[in-house]
Amino acid sequence: MPLKPWKVLESTYLRPRFRVDKCELPSGYILDANIMEFRTWANILALTKDREAVLVKQYRHGVQDFLLELPGGIIEDGEAPLAGIQRELLEETGYSSPHVVEAGWLFPNPALQTNKVHAFIALDAELTSAQSLDDGEEIEVHLVPLEELKSLAANGKFQHALHVAVLFQALAYLDKIT
Amino acid sequence: MPLKPWKVLESTYLRPRFRVDKCELPSGYILDANIMEFRTWANILALTKDREAVLVKQYRHGVQDFLLELPGGIIEDGEAPLAGIQRELLEETGYSSPHVVEAGWLFPNPALQTNKVHAFIALDAELTSAQSLDDGEEIEVHLVPLEELKSLAANGKFQHALHVAVLFQALAYLDKIT
Repeated sequence: MPLKPWKVLESTYLRPRFRVDKCELPSGYILDANIMEFRTWANILALTKDREAVLVKQYRHGVQDFLLELPGGIIEDGEAPLAGIQRELLEETGYSSPHVVEAGWLFPNPALQTNKVHAFIALDAELTSAQSLDDGEEIEVHLVPLEELKSLAANGKFQHALHVAVLFQALAYLDKIT
Repeated sequence: MPLKPWKVLESTYLRPRFRVDKCELPSGYILDANIMEFRTWANILALTKDREAVLVKQYRHGVQDFLLELPGGIIEDGEAPLAGIQRELLEETGYSSPHVVEAGWLFPNPALQTNKVHAFIALDAELTSAQSLDDGEEIEVHLVPLEELKSLAANGKFQHALHVAVLFQALAYLDKIT
């Protein structure tokens, strides 16, 4: 018997972007699905001429710890992912690059969220301005050699799962073009 | 100036496991952080003797599509992650393995969620029983050669970001032991 989609019987918004769908499954079973309509996200593996990755470290309140991550964030409504990631890279790190390409995209959580996360890679990234942070942002910039970043990820020291996934796509893309 | 944690001024639960923390940032800025206290998750790269990965395909209502994924799910309260992933593998696929090890763990979304996702790997997985699905589950089992799975992930055809991250850790672990 082929898999079938669920039928939505009723949708209710508890808060903006947070929807509960009462669904009827192919089996007839009824359940409430909590769905978050997040905006598009993007992250970037930005490499300098010396093949150092431009990383950010910031406080993450969900786990109440400071994590090393790829730059990136939320793409604004109406903004193209490429423009958004260039903006985020510049704002968070002060770095920019003439060579930014999309390596692919993924679903951050296809069961609970509607959105995609786009994976970008930048070559020849250079420091071209000061950071320009939002009120809620406090970000340290760290340059980490690409081989060291791979080793951190392989050894569980690069702990943001979505950024590991973006790194995977970016490295696969790098393998194809080099 | 070193990074500092945020100070929680007030915590309110909108629903069970869904908390809003009114936080004061080191800069003095005040914001509301939406935090989801999800249970621990785990996923597994289970390989047969022929190095085929045991994968699952199911409907994901967030993106309203059918996705190929690693087996896994929610670890129950009081359950060890190892016991939980063995249970999930057996229930979802009917496969089990005498050799299941943890390759590492990650934060699925450290900004918004408190939980971890554990990455497991199983060798010599064999079909030992029938599927045992919950009322809300309808799952197809697919055997995919490991090299084909790597290629799918490298080409954006294995689209669940958390599972790509778990695959990354599992493959890194395999590299170390083989």
